[in-house]
Amino acid sequence: MIEIKGGVTAPKGFFASGIHCGLKREKKDLAFIYSDVMCSGAAVYTRNLVKGEPIYVTQEHLKDGQAQAIIINSGNANTCTGQKGRQNAFKMARGLAKEIGANKEDIIVASTGVIGVQLPVEKIEAAIPELVSRASKEGHIDASEAILTTDLSNKEIALSIEIEGKEVTLGGMAKGSGMIEPNMATMLSFITTDINIDQDLLKEALGTTVDKSYNRISVDGDTSTNDMVSILANGKAGNAKITSKDENYDKFVKALQHINIYLAKEIARDGEGATKLVECFVKGAKSEEDAEKLSKSVIASSLVKTAMFGADANWGRILCALGYAGVEVDLKQINIDIESKSGLITVYKDGKGADFDEDLAKKILDAKEIRIIVNLNSGSCEATAWGCDLSYDYVKINGAYRT
Amino acid sequence: MIEIKGGVTAPKGFFASGIHCGLKREKKDLAFIYSDVMCSGAAVYTRNLVKGEPIYVTQEHLKDGQAQAIIINSGNANTCTGQKGRQNAFKMARGLAKEIGANKEDIIVASTGVIGVQLPVEKIEAAIPELVSRASKEGHIDASEAILTTDLSNKEIALSIEIEGKEVTLGGMAKGSGMIEPNMATMLSFITTDINIDQDLLKEALGTTVDKSYNRISVDGDTSTNDMVSILANGKAGNAKITSKDENYDKFVKALQHINIYLAKEIARDGEGATKLVECFVKGAKSEEDAEKLSKSVIASSLVKTAMFGADANWGRILCALGYAGVEVDLKQINIDIESKSGLITVYKDGKGADFDEDLAKKILDAKEIRIIVNLNSGSCEATAWGCDLSYDYVKINGAYRT
Repeated sequence: MIEIKGGVTAPKGFFASGIHCGLKREKKDLAFIYSDVMCSGAAVYTRNLVKGEPIYVTQEHLKDGQAQAIIINSGNANTCTGQKGRQNAFKMARGLAKEIGANKEDIIVASTGVIGVQLPVEKIEAAIPELVSRASKEGHIDASEAILTTDLSNKEIALSIEIEGKEVTLGGMAKGSGMIEPNMATMLSFITTDINIDQDLLKEALGTTVDKSYNRISVDGDTSTNDMVSILANGKAGNAKITSKDENYDKFVKALQHINIYLAKEIARDGEGATKLVECFVKGAKSEEDAEKLSKSVIASSLVKTAMFGADANWGRILCALGYAGVEVDLKQINIDIESKSGLITVYKDGKGADFDEDLAKKILDAKEIRIIVNLNSGSCEATAWGCDLSYDYVKINGAYRT
Repeated sequence: MIEIKGGVTAPKGFFASGIHCGLKREKKDLAFIYSDVMCSGAAVYTRNLVKGEPIYVTQEHLKDGQAQAIIINSGNANTCTGQKGRQNAFKMARGLAKEIGANKEDIIVASTGVIGVQLPVEKIEAAIPELVSRASKEGHIDASEAILTTDLSNKEIALSIEIEGKEVTLGGMAKGSGMIEPNMATMLSFITTDINIDQDLLKEALGTTVDKSYNRISVDGDTSTNDMVSILANGKAGNAKITSKDENYDKFVKALQHINIYLAKEIARDGEGATKLVECFVKGAKSEEDAEKLSKSVIASSLVKTAMFGADANWGRILCALGYAGVEVDLKQINIDIESKSGLITVYKDGKGADFDEDLAKKILDAKEIRIIVNLNSGSCEATAWGCDLSYDYVKINGAYRT
């Protein structure tokens, strides 16, 4: 597995673009990903009952497990916009399909931005010819920028693996939870690959890896209405089609997981107002489910998050979050370490607080990436969850008046 | 039901005091509640697996359903302090019992403050004679002040009801979620009454009313290790003992619920960094459980909380929080109103955003008490939950370095 340059256009046959169509004042707000042949496609969606209109359209279009292109706008979530909103999401698909000569059912649609405001779809329709004409191998950067809302940086990655002598490439781009006007926004992630793989296996690989990546991050605990992770696989790598869970499938899943974890961590790191990435690794658990619940409870705790912001080795809050996670744990057996590039301290051992050097603790916690390691000493399962600190800027970004 | 003056000493036979014993720098940090006759006693405790040592001691002492006095310190939670901490909690009970001539098993112990630091119990022991000697009818104010941590105001209430010609009185005091040094603190509430009631019914009345009051508030979603609500009933009102769920029991439960809801709301209003009280009333639900889940999801949402801080009528966030509450709701039937003393606006109706006057919305949301009213229009059950806004000060209070 080698990390290579490029994002969603790194795999063979993929092209992308990103332009400004007028939904935002100045920044790019319309993105396009395209494969020059039909792809197997799959997606996972937000579990919020309130769903953006594009979610319904994409679900319908992916029923046959095939897609060829993706259109994404930022600046408007097209959510709570009723029948007109649904029609506008269909119009995005129809407009793009017409321009590239595809069926509208082969288009994935995604939106992120303000909720409850009708999408000025005519701006998108008018921009589609330019959007398509700009598609290129270099367009991955523009595309990754055009999907952002209040994200501070674009997020992309590409990987290369070898499957039976053939080079197989995966690429991805994502955006995190941010606000536009400000209203709640969304986590969107788009993965492309040239692997040749059975549709059902592609779907399963996506689900498995999403559970261990995007489903293990939290910025503020609010599940957006428009969350979506999609994958397109066009088969151009030329490998013999993967049709069972053999070692090639495992190799692919491993690469896909690497990509999804990378993008998920980047989303956590770039959470609203975040100044650092906080990782909680729970090991020695009786089950992976237990470890997952515990690690998520720690990174989601507002008290842990503010302590991380303040560079405070406040292990009482970590222990407290473990205590209300809904998992039976033996508190007397737990060890807790806190680690960063500046060192490691043990803060809790054998059922009570451990003596540690407060100056070293402060140094460790001043780093931009903090790792909280919890050893339950009662099993062999483990899980990691990622989050960010809670800062003044989170309140600033989200407390400002909408209009 | 008449609201009267006085807190925990309003019922006949109850006395209280609050003094400074040296756990905090200057503020009162030791409180005492006393009944001159034995009481029926009951308590509910935090569900956090990590529990303060006083919780274990109080649980043991209330096994027989009886108690006569309460000792509470602030400034140190006596949590994660191991065997020595347990002994210190017992010492608080023993010291007080000796001074008032009671059995140590009849003493309730509670602590709130910093976690993981051994309690300097000798300071408490040395102060017990003065604490006891100061107990008086007027002492309820001192007591209610001595249990505070970063609370901005003391919280007390007293009510009088009539049961078959006898005046029955209930009193209560509470403290909210705050930090001391700062470490996570606690919700504590102490109820006294002179009603004559069967022990089991007293316990049941407490459980029922706690579920609809303290269990429906959220400041930051972190369940403390030391939470406790206790009640003492000394029978001095002279009513015929309540031994069944008759109309007198109902009358008592109604008064107890009034007290618990009042104190719970005061805790939410005085949440860390809070500038306003936010109430979410969900009606038209299929079950009370559904209504409770939905109302709690709204008041716990960081995005709703920051919008309330910013006086932003951001109904998309309210809808979003309803959508991920884990309850099946028909979004097309929901109405959402926002109300305060300045007026009422409908922000969502018939499955989409409603037009409203943004100036009026801002005026309504600038009030110190906001009510979000959600009508599901699909049943006859309802529930209310209370929270507060999320402000810069929450981050400031909790982000500051511990030492």
